[in-house]
Parts: sequence; C-alpha cells; structure tokens
Amino acid sequence: MRLADRLVRLKPSATMAVNALALELARAGRDIISLSIGEPDFDTPPLARAAGIKAIEEGFTRYTAEAGIPELRWAAAEYFNRNYGAGATMENILIANGGKQALFNVFMALLNPGDEVLIPAPYWVSYPAMVEIAGGVPVVVRTGVEKNFKAGVEDLERHFTPKTRICVLNSPSNPTGMVYTTAEVDDLAAWAVDRQILLLSDEIYDQLVYAPAAYSSLCAWWKKSPENFVVVNGVSKSFAMTGWRLGYVLARADLILAAGKFQGHSTSNVCSIAQKAALAALSGPMPELEFMRAAFEKRRRLTMEAVASWPGVRCPEPQGAFYVFPDVRQLYTNELSGSTTFCTFLLEQAGVALVPGEAFGDDHCIRISYATEEKTLVRGLEKIRGVLFKKN
Amino acid sequence: MRLADRLVRLKPSATMAVNALALELARAGRDIISLSIGEPDFDTPPLARAAGIKAIEEGFTRYTAEAGIPELRWAAAEYFNRNYGAGATMENILIANGGKQALFNVFMALLNPGDEVLIPAPYWVSYPAMVEIAGGVPVVVRTGVEKNFKAGVEDLERHFTPKTRICVLNSPSNPTGMVYTTAEVDDLAAWAVDRQILLLSDEIYDQLVYAPAAYSSLCAWWKKSPENFVVVNGVSKSFAMTGWRLGYVLARADLILAAGKFQGHSTSNVCSIAQKAALAALSGPMPELEFMRAAFEKRRRLTMEAVASWPGVRCPEPQGAFYVFPDVRQLYTNELSGSTTFCTFLLEQAGVALVPGEAFGDDHCIRISYATEEKTLVRGLEKIRGVLFKKN
Repeated sequence: MRLADRLVRLKPSATMAVNALALELARAGRDIISLSIGEPDFDTPPLARAAGIKAIEEGFTRYTAEAGIPELRWAAAEYFNRNYGAGATMENILIANGGKQALFNVFMALLNPGDEVLIPAPYWVSYPAMVEIAGGVPVVVRTGVEKNFKAGVEDLERHFTPKTRICVLNSPSNPTGMVYTTAEVDDLAAWAVDRQILLLSDEIYDQLVYAPAAYSSLCAWWKKSPENFVVVNGVSKSFAMTGWRLGYVLARADLILAAGKFQGHSTSNVCSIAQKAALAALSGPMPELEFMRAAFEKRRRLTMEAVASWPGVRCPEPQGAFYVFPDVRQLYTNELSGSTTFCTFLLEQAGVALVPGEAFGDDHCIRISYATEEKTLVRGLEKIRGVLFKKN
Repeated sequence: MRLADRLVRLKPSATMAVNALALELARAGRDIISLSIGEPDFDTPPLARAAGIKAIEEGFTRYTAEAGIPELRWAAAEYFNRNYGAGATMENILIANGGKQALFNVFMALLNPGDEVLIPAPYWVSYPAMVEIAGGVPVVVRTGVEKNFKAGVEDLERHFTPKTRICVLNSPSNPTGMVYTTAEVDDLAAWAVDRQILLLSDEIYDQLVYAPAAYSSLCAWWKKSPENFVVVNGVSKSFAMTGWRLGYVLARADLILAAGKFQGHSTSNVCSIAQKAALAALSGPMPELEFMRAAFEKRRRLTMEAVASWPGVRCPEPQGAFYVFPDVRQLYTNELSGSTTFCTFLLEQAGVALVPGEAFGDDHCIRISYATEEKTLVRGLEKIRGVLFKKN
C-alpha cells in the first residue's frame, strides 16, 4: 500500500521499541528490569481518581466543547497564573490529548513547508517527528555532556536562518533531567524576542525539580511578549496521570483558536472523564505531589551514586524529571560501538532495559529512568555494574 | 501570528457554531430547543460505566500500547468478525480517539499533496477538512434529494481521475440518515476494486439501522480485497459513549502500523480508562442497544410525520442514524435564501436549533437531529411548524 511521504521517513518511537524487546524477553521467561519507561510508578492521586469516578457515575460522558470544558481551561490558566504569574484567562488555554497532542497542535497550527524549527539535542524523541509531519524542517542543535546538555544563545544563533520560526525548549529535560537556570532562560527568551521567533517551552516536568535548583517557567516571558512564547504542560508526569491523556497549551488567543480548530477536525474534545479528573488535580490540594517529588529525589541520589562509581562514565547531575543520562562513550569498543548496541548488550547480558541515547540525538549516552520503585532501581543499577565492570 | 496555510482555509465545524449561538440565546433567557446535536441523549450503558470505574479503582491509569491494549484490539476485531464476517485479527485494528481520529489517521497515513478524495455530498462536515489538512484535494460528488442523497458508480466515475486515491462512504449517513442497500454497496465496492482505489467506509452508525432496512458493512469486501477497503467504527453512537472518545480502524496490517506510527507521534494511546469501558461495551451483552434503537426508531417516525405535513418540503425517509434531512428550498424567499439564513431564522423565531445543510454540502436542506427525548423533539417540531406555516 502506498503510504504518505510524511510517514515513510518516520521511525517508530525508539523508547517504545526497546520496551517491546524487553517485554519479549520477559515473556520468554527472563527476569527483566525496566529502567526505560517515562512515567511515574505512582498511582494517580485519590482526589483525581474520585473525580473521574464521579464523572462516570453522574453521566458526564458526552461531547464537551472541543477546546475543553471552561472550568478546566480556567483551572489550567490559574495553574500558570498562581505558580508563574502568567496572567492568563481561559481564552489562552487549549485542553489536548496529553502534552504530546498539545505540542503537535501547535506545530500543525504554525508550520508551513520549509519552516525551520531549532531543536536542542538531546531532545525528546517526538519533536523532530512532529515537525516533519507538520511539513517543517527540524534543525538539530547539538550540545553534549561538555555543555551539561544545554543550548546557549550562541548555539542557537549558529543555526538561525531567515526560515527559523520556532525554537523548542524542554526544561526539565527528557532525557537529560537538566534544568535551565533563570539566567539561562532569560538569555534564550530575550534572544527569541530579538529574533522574533517563537520559543515553544515544554514544561511537562515542571513539578519535578529538586532543591537547591529552582524552576524557571517561560510564563512570565509569555506575559510580556505573548507572540513569542507558547508553554505546554499537562497532568501526566506531575500528577501521575499518564494514561488519562491530558495536556494543555498556554498561548495567545488567536493561536489557541487555530490549534483548537485543528484539534476539532482531528480528534475533537479530550475524554470528558479525564477532563474532570484533571480539574480535580489542578484545583485541589495534592499532598501526593510532595511525596512523589521526595521519592524521586532520593532515587536520583541513588542513581547518581551508582553512575558516579562507574569508571570512564561522565554524568552531570540532573536537577529535574526522573532521568539520568550518562555519557558512556569511554566504554564503547569495536563490538559495542554505539548506544543502541550498548543498550541491547545491557538488555541481553544484564537483563536491564534502558533507552539508547541515539533515540534522543546523542549516541554517546544512555537514558536511565528512575521512575521505578527503589529496590528494583538499585537491583538494576547493580546488574549493570556487574556486567560492565566485572573485572574491577 | 502567521498561521499554517493548512488552517487558514478551514472553517470551524458549523454544527458547533450553531450550537454556540443556541447556547448564547439560552443564556440570555430564551427557551431554546436544540435539535442540532449529533449524539445520543442516552447514558452510557452500566456495564461500560462499571468497567471505567473499575479501571480507575484498580489503577489502570498508565500509558498503554500506542495502538491500544491487545484485548480491546481483539474485541474490535471480533466485533467486525461476528457481525460482518471480516476475518480480522488484532493486527488489523488501531484504537483511536473517536471515529474522528480513526478517519484522520487514515488520511494522514495515505495522502500525499494533490491526491484526490471523492466525497459524496451531503457529507459529514469534517471529511473535506481532514483531507485538506492531510494535503489532499476533496472532490465533492453532489447527489441531492432527487437521488435519495446517495452516490452511484456513474456519479463517482464522472469525478474519477488518475489522481483519485480514496472514496469516502458513510452509511448510515450523517446528515441524511440514508443507508446504502447491499446491491448499492456491492456496486460501489466492485468499482473501487476495478479502479484500484481505497473505499473508506465510515460505519459509525452501523447499529442504528431500522427494519425493514438491513445493514451492509464493507467488512466482507475488506476480507476479499483488503488493499481496497478500510472500515472505521467506534463506540460513540452505538453505545452512547461520545465523551469517552474511542474509535477504531479496520485495515491491512501495514496501514494499521503506519497509522499507528502517526498516532504515536501525535497523541499516543487513547485514555486507558476509555479503553477498558469500550472493551466492556464490545464484549458484553448490551440490552440497552435494542432499547436505544427502538426509541430512535419511534422518534424517526414522529419526525417524519411532522416533516411530511410541511407543504413544499421533500424528505426521503431515512433508514438509519438519528437525522432527518428535509429539502426546504421551496420555502426559501428573497430574505430566506439559503440554509444558514433559514436556520438562523428558525433559531430566532421558533427557538429551535438545527444545522444548515450548507455545512454538509447541500444548501437546499436542513438537518434535524432526533437524538433528543420525545417530548422535546415533538415540541420543537411543532414550533417549527408554527413559524413556517402559521397562515395555513
């Protein structure tokens, strides 16, 4: 069957591919530890679950407005206002199927053929794919462990052309866990305003930042110059609600209308039950948030301690999200010459599933997710050590 | 803000626009009867609701496989096999965010710039928009009341070119309620095979067909010649589950993979809770189905009796869905010269919200939805009569 050109180039998500191989080995009876998944191992907090159940019981199971129920759009606006001084109203919010569709809608609403999008690497796997589907040209801006995996103005400037329309920023970052400081964010934001491009800030991990690091959202910049910024967030990571599929866009009202029009013709409203659950998550007290953050912080420490003890491995300490992204190129050999071979080796020999850095645009690295309960995490890290450094 | 060209041409869904005006009048204190909405007024059956609640209680709130949980893909395959002899397996099924995304994924997976898609009019509002977003060219094939709103091979053949790749078929039809007979379906299907194009069959209303009419699915043709057919369905209309957002595609495994890859990068899996609820709907006994069908059938009779008594109005009796689509052009005057003006007039004068046929590509008609409880429906029809024929 002849497929659309837009799909022929696309690879399936590499994170999912490794997961599939791991599942296969597990089904064949192997003891496989998965440190590859990008979702909290915690349950959705009771308040949100109760709201979902109530929605079903009360028959809130019909179409809603395509951009989301007004009270949820308001709650998302209030979230941005309360935490980051955005000064948004519901007209600035679109409710989408997860942070993923929130981003996709923005690309589809803005990109014309040939428009260039700057994507600092390491990047989340779907950014380049989304840009390509939307007809744009992903322009990868390499950083690497030497720069703590962060792009500066000089890096972006080197790739800037008259066709540059969007630059993606993801802090805290998947896969590196790096958090841009306020000074760094301000530099990039001022540059975006100067260059009159759009800085698309993916803030899906904003609640998972570990002291003493502090979080800098782009919301304040959006308030000052709404035509140069879009902020995307959602309940998936912060509230352990990945399966519900609910994200939101903060943007100028005209862009929200355009992105909503696209969503209206492609998927329509988000599941009405998920909307009610997200409303509860965004509105109510959520003591679980602090509990989850503390648990992740402890696991980050355990992971960093393990990785720091691996000879030849470089790994700046992440300040957020739930990933560690060590540069393991010193361990590469003629047989193990890249991150995918390396991860396949670890999966087969140690029984531990990681994601190759290649999937994120940095073949020197591997991604360890610590969104797994402590005992399993520690056992997985020990198994990796056992296979890699058994002679030490 | 400069928007993508793909969106500049798009109108927001006209069905939603009328609904918005109706809501506005209602908020201003007017007694507005809405006969404009395309969703059952019934609640989701208890079995499906219970399964949704159980999923939340048991913490089934995490990412699932992007194409859907295997048991639901199997259940959808079984649905097609049991009812229509499709002979499908789970590899032939993609679970999407409603019938809408099921269709959208197919267009995005198949269409290249300039590819033509035949769309018989009256058509569901989103078909042309989806084709345009996917870079294709919608080619509208007019039918009209004279042809009972159905396209025959000779109509399609007149619009066939070497660039034709897809033809959309929607039976039972939104907005006309027409059901293609087995002979008609076979003619179109044989033509699609002969012309080596894809017949995309939107069967979302398949359970809402009223005796003595019988339903002809394209599943049997798909079994014979899987490269020429795709069938789309979902739980929204048959199981009163519009808000849950769950549809499915039946297609060759390679197309399912491609469409799934696109979905994986644009929205990922459907809400895990909705998947469990849909699994219950597709697997269990659903006595509510027969109850809802009987209620709709009675309302169809009431609506047809009313419309038949309106002088100058032509309206073939629909055999399915929950719409009646009368041709009212004889009632047009210099002031009321098209379906949009006509519907605005009815909304303002009679306080009844309908959808103008213009939105569906037939400006002679108006769409009356009888997915409203009987008393309200009858009152709405009487109000229309009162305004249109008060001198009679």
